[in-house]
Amino acid sequence: MADKTEALEAIKIQGEVVRKLKSEKASKDQIDVEVAKLLELKLRLGGDDGKHQFVLKTPKGTRDYSPKQMAIRDKVFNTIVGCFKRHGAETIDTPVFELKETLTGKYGEDSKLIYDLKDQGGELLSLRYDLTVPFARYLAMNKISNIKRYHIAKVYRRDNPAMTRGRYREFYQCDFDIAGQYDPMIPDAECLRIVHEILSELDLGDFHIKVNDRRILDGMFAVCGVPDDKFRTICSTVDKLDKMCWEDVKKEMVKEKGLSEEAADQIGEYVSMQGGMDLAVHLLEDSKLSQSKQACAGLSDMKQLFSYLQLFQVTDKVVFDLSLARGLDYYTGIIYEAVLTQGGVVPPTGDGPKAEVSVGSVAGGGRYDGLVGMFDPKGRTVPCVGVSIGIERIFSIMEQKVEAEKVRTTEIQVMVASAQKNLLEERLKLLTELWNAGIKAEAMYKKNPKLLSQLQHCEESGIPLVAILGEQELKDGMVKLRTVATREEVDVCRVDLIEEIRKKTSEV
Amino acid sequence: MADKTEALEAIKIQGEVVRKLKSEKASKDQIDVEVAKLLELKLRLGGDDGKHQFVLKTPKGTRDYSPKQMAIRDKVFNTIVGCFKRHGAETIDTPVFELKETLTGKYGEDSKLIYDLKDQGGELLSLRYDLTVPFARYLAMNKISNIKRYHIAKVYRRDNPAMTRGRYREFYQCDFDIAGQYDPMIPDAECLRIVHEILSELDLGDFHIKVNDRRILDGMFAVCGVPDDKFRTICSTVDKLDKMCWEDVKKEMVKEKGLSEEAADQIGEYVSMQGGMDLAVHLLEDSKLSQSKQACAGLSDMKQLFSYLQLFQVTDKVVFDLSLARGLDYYTGIIYEAVLTQGGVVPPTGDGPKAEVSVGSVAGGGRYDGLVGMFDPKGRTVPCVGVSIGIERIFSIMEQKVEAEKVRTTEIQVMVASAQKNLLEERLKLLTELWNAGIKAEAMYKKNPKLLSQLQHCEESGIPLVAILGEQELKDGMVKLRTVATREEVDVCRVDLIEEIRKKTSEV
Repeated sequence: MADKTEALEAIKIQGEVVRKLKSEKASKDQIDVEVAKLLELKLRLGGDDGKHQFVLKTPKGTRDYSPKQMAIRDKVFNTIVGCFKRHGAETIDTPVFELKETLTGKYGEDSKLIYDLKDQGGELLSLRYDLTVPFARYLAMNKISNIKRYHIAKVYRRDNPAMTRGRYREFYQCDFDIAGQYDPMIPDAECLRIVHEILSELDLGDFHIKVNDRRILDGMFAVCGVPDDKFRTICSTVDKLDKMCWEDVKKEMVKEKGLSEEAADQIGEYVSMQGGMDLAVHLLEDSKLSQSKQACAGLSDMKQLFSYLQLFQVTDKVVFDLSLARGLDYYTGIIYEAVLTQGGVVPPTGDGPKAEVSVGSVAGGGRYDGLVGMFDPKGRTVPCVGVSIGIERIFSIMEQKVEAEKVRTTEIQVMVASAQKNLLEERLKLLTELWNAGIKAEAMYKKNPKLLSQLQHCEESGIPLVAILGEQELKDGMVKLRTVATREEVDVCRVDLIEEIRKKTSEV
Repeated sequence: MADKTEALEAIKIQGEVVRKLKSEKASKDQIDVEVAKLLELKLRLGGDDGKHQFVLKTPKGTRDYSPKQMAIRDKVFNTIVGCFKRHGAETIDTPVFELKETLTGKYGEDSKLIYDLKDQGGELLSLRYDLTVPFARYLAMNKISNIKRYHIAKVYRRDNPAMTRGRYREFYQCDFDIAGQYDPMIPDAECLRIVHEILSELDLGDFHIKVNDRRILDGMFAVCGVPDDKFRTICSTVDKLDKMCWEDVKKEMVKEKGLSEEAADQIGEYVSMQGGMDLAVHLLEDSKLSQSKQACAGLSDMKQLFSYLQLFQVTDKVVFDLSLARGLDYYTGIIYEAVLTQGGVVPPTGDGPKAEVSVGSVAGGGRYDGLVGMFDPKGRTVPCVGVSIGIERIFSIMEQKVEAEKVRTTEIQVMVASAQKNLLEERLKLLTELWNAGIKAEAMYKKNPKLLSQLQHCEESGIPLVAILGEQELKDGMVKLRTVATREEVDVCRVDLIEEIRKKTSEV
């Protein structure tokens, strides 16, 4: 009983939270989140009859996709897959879980976010955390030394969900990778071209793609006097520059990570630099940076990359930006990240001062030449470069864009309707003729539906045509074909109906 | 060290198993399975340098899909989804895991096959076991009272895998369901029409669809004198008639399940009956069966069903078969199952005497009017009928069919090649022109590839056209366009190239 009293109290408090948000005219998203909590509390308490005690919800950080969301999702996927295919990619699929040891030691600190399966006897398994490690495992296992593949699938992270910002525990990744030993920077440039094509085609607003190189970063740290063992941690601080101002980043370097103020200032000068091929040329002559062999290798490749990007006609959007760091450990060469630059389309990813300028990363990737070797029994390496499209954020943007619009969730071309009673059999017969001809058609599952409700259904679900049967039409071997949008009706000979439908649907 | 000795011994024994199978000319599948075991043992022992001790494999009962398998999979899915869309279905998606309690009490004995996630703090979760229970949860949670939806996604069962027979622990389900209160048997008939369309279109060989009704089965058990509490267990014995002969089924009923011999014999008479609408009419007049109200309701609906099936033109393949039982508890009305009847296409599912006739179920479903009510806090029910396409078995058949054939895994239309050295930039420039025009094109990622190796790549991967650049062509503003299949080459003006490619690819 104490439990019940507590539960009732919790419901009361949560109810007040919801009322307060509503009175404050908070955002719909915010209210929805709190209402969901309230419903969960109520459900935990049990239904009216006490029979259904379980919680009717999806697991934390996950969601169902409604037909409307699926229609948007499919549209986005079609655009992206179309681009991948234009570039000659094959696709593969891997299981949703891997042996636990396959994922071990690949994600550093983030390993704590991996979902493990319960030990029910047999192997120890974990849900995949990304698509890159399974891809590397697949290449090593099948001894594949070159492939251009895409993979679109769900991955799992026990992270703190922020669903209104498009951050889930179960979410899609959408990866394109080129594996193989090739002449430098050609596949790398193609990855950037692909990002450019996809973001242009999806029409999400203006964007740019930041490019840097792990070797340039490491060389920069070396010549600025960062001790070797602090490269990674200083790098992850630099990575915060898209959310924090330089002063705060510097403070973290000096105060928290014990870097000398002098080194930090030198880094500060470099990471403020942005440009194109000219910047690479300029830095190759920089008296300090040119002392690092690593940096020079990275800068020469950067120069080469930009020459290919010119041929691929994408330099308008690509910026060589020395502040780009990216978190993942496994990158060995070029890294990149695409950000939308139009404000107000998506909620900002951080609360820092830059939030109103950059609305967040929608694609990212880089070169990782060492990962496959971690799996190969003989340590044989396969150089790889790839890109991951931030599909969940793109879904959020698309959903917001079409929120008010009607999105068709079926592709039905014709509704077979009747004006009078007792024509079910005739409707089903005509329906069968249409199906036989490959036309997308349906009829209401009622013996005697009203004509009005049949027409209403068409308006609601965007069905463009109605084939109407009546006693007279049947006698005359005719069908009345109605165009829903214009309400125009024409009498069509039954034998010509299919052709007429094809003509009209290609017009609509 | 003892471990290592044991491991070496196990490898030796397994090596002999493989050698024996090979000498006996066993099937490739069988050998592959044993070779896989051998490799696993070897990997367990560790690589040569002892550095990579982990096992390079996918979890038990799971597999990767190669590009070729994906190409087949996509083709099958396109056919099936095309059919679902022709019938006006929307699609939804649900998370791969559900709250454990959502799945509790839905699968009877099979619950032990559910994969649980490890308790890492937070909710207790399980991987979905099918798509029907998440669908019912979705309907109840969103208070949806009618929808026609399909859902294609992976489900998980910790079953004993038989991968050569297409039985995996991770496998696709492909479900179409109609939820809503409608006039009887119209949606049910449409489900059968859909099975008919899909199996015809996939061209898997001859098939038939068995139909029965839970109420007819229950009525039959009642009039034959089966005690109420034995309905379910006797039903599951009847379900084995597709794999066992009647004598063995009867023995199980009498010896194991304690049914009287007399009752068993009466059941035996009924379950040997097959027919169409005529059989339903005949049984409505059966002096015994007509005493059961349940049976009569089922038989009247069966009669009605067949009248709609006639209108839908599918009676050629549908058989009213009183021996069809189907395992799942949640069915409440009509049930059906499609089987391929051509021998030799797939390995038989059982070793029983019927194996050479019926090669196994490729689709099944039925009406389940109570499931949504189990989730609704107020017990509000939503009648549902649906069908699940046995997609994994269909994949196996398709894979066997095309084993020898070449299956294209990319859609590249043109390879941009060069006949001389130092033309990388020109190739990339032309490639960009083609991409800009939406043409699927690629070039080799080499500065100076040999013409022969470029042409070979086209032959291997089925690329139909090659656009060849040389010094002379560049000077003249021309491109040599080669048709790979015929080796015919034509010189095309660069400005006409895209049009020419479009023309040629629509011919090919």
